[in-house]
Amino acid sequence: MRAFEKVAVVGTGLIGGSIALAMKKKRLCRRVIGISLHKESLDSAKRLGAVDEAFLSLEAIKDADLVILAMPVRAILKLAPKISQIVKIDCLVFDVASTKVNITGKLSGLFKFFVGAHPLAGSEKRGINFARPDLFLNSLCILTPLKNTDKSAVLKVKKLWTALGAKTLVMSPQRHDRILGFVSHLSHIAAFSLINSIPAQFLKFSIASLKESTRIASSDPRLWAEIVLDNRKNSLAAISKMQANLRQIKSALQSKSSSRLTGIFKKAKFRRDSLK
Amino acid sequence: MRAFEKVAVVGTGLIGGSIALAMKKKRLCRRVIGISLHKESLDSAKRLGAVDEAFLSLEAIKDADLVILAMPVRAILKLAPKISQIVKIDCLVFDVASTKVNITGKLSGLFKFFVGAHPLAGSEKRGINFARPDLFLNSLCILTPLKNTDKSAVLKVKKLWTALGAKTLVMSPQRHDRILGFVSHLSHIAAFSLINSIPAQFLKFSIASLKESTRIASSDPRLWAEIVLDNRKNSLAAISKMQANLRQIKSALQSKSSSRLTGIFKKAKFRRDSLK
Repeated sequence: MRAFEKVAVVGTGLIGGSIALAMKKKRLCRRVIGISLHKESLDSAKRLGAVDEAFLSLEAIKDADLVILAMPVRAILKLAPKISQIVKIDCLVFDVASTKVNITGKLSGLFKFFVGAHPLAGSEKRGINFARPDLFLNSLCILTPLKNTDKSAVLKVKKLWTALGAKTLVMSPQRHDRILGFVSHLSHIAAFSLINSIPAQFLKFSIASLKESTRIASSDPRLWAEIVLDNRKNSLAAISKMQANLRQIKSALQSKSSSRLTGIFKKAKFRRDSLK
Repeated sequence: MRAFEKVAVVGTGLIGGSIALAMKKKRLCRRVIGISLHKESLDSAKRLGAVDEAFLSLEAIKDADLVILAMPVRAILKLAPKISQIVKIDCLVFDVASTKVNITGKLSGLFKFFVGAHPLAGSEKRGINFARPDLFLNSLCILTPLKNTDKSAVLKVKKLWTALGAKTLVMSPQRHDRILGFVSHLSHIAAFSLINSIPAQFLKFSIASLKESTRIASSDPRLWAEIVLDNRKNSLAAISKMQANLRQIKSALQSKSSSRLTGIFKKAKFRRDSLK
């Protein structure tokens, strides 16, 4: 299936690089070009065979028939107007950012064929050097078209993610951001808070469970500041929920209630055991 | 090194069973007997070759020269007086519970040769069927003798844990409980709270990072209620610290401060990256 002639990946990091590698490997297009502000990233992308050509300037995307926006959320929102003036009118465009309401709303007005996408694959690692063509294998990619999004555009993006090995799921950007606020953004906020709560002199006693619970606290700080700010309302709601649950445990501890503590922990175990 | 003639493991669960398996495998004693309230656990311990003989009654420990208390904290505190009346006067005794102040204080008065021990190895799994002779390989075992604890008893327990593959570290029970309150008990409280904060209808979107961050929420609810209650003061202090860190993130989000959020997340990343 050669679905595209020329694909432009804007942002050749972990996700953009992995998409490029996978598209090349699966021969989903004739050519992939990479665009980045970072020359080292472009050099690595070329060296790794992720892209055929690499450019520091956006001008190179002008004859692409698919443009993939794989930058952090703020860069996408900032550069989208400029990008929309360069691309062909019938160019298919999707992004891969972790938040969808603002991006989908704004970019749907800028591009004729835009589809919001969020591949739930990634890592606390970043950069092209961690890119893998199989990063999306057996993962989930959420697509967030609006009511007026072109149906054939959605179908093309869906087919592409299926070809990359992902299952796709369509939902509204609002529902996406609400869900991710809890199942992803809150986990990160909890991990950041947990590791920051350990007195510095105790960090050397880093037992396996602490390391596992806080692995994602190694994620890129700027990227995550952008994500939680872009999903501010849901992040705040999720934090409030976590605060209420901590207060509940604290209160049971204060009143030395073994039965209340056991009840809370049982509920947690039941929920955790139920995760697929 | 056959350091002991007859070893009695009271509580043939994951930890007790793993110690028994390892002692047998390394021929550290002539015989291991198991004592438990649960017949199935004893049957499994015999079937797996962890113990030579199994008993439902404590009377069987009367001629042991080493008694290992591998029950949950409350059972240890409850049964210790009875056990102290059965064992030989020169019997070496250590426990393996996750909290050390109360147990070490009480049991040091009951036994002539008692040493508090806490192997930092374990799992959210429990029971003899998950026991492994190599569970303690490359792990850390903290010993918490008091000032008046017999030095040769400490040395014997230290040698035993070294033989089981663990590194040993000696500290006061107070310091142990303070450290563990943060690096272990708080992680569990955070995991219980995090999974309880996810709206039930979103649990099906269980992405890898959420699963990883909450794996320990599958731990035994009763056991953990006992642990945090026994380490109540430190658990409460640790929760307060986590609450302060969550409030900090919330406040930065409320005031839309990208720089404050980035600063908080950077600190978290620096700390997490520094863990060995």
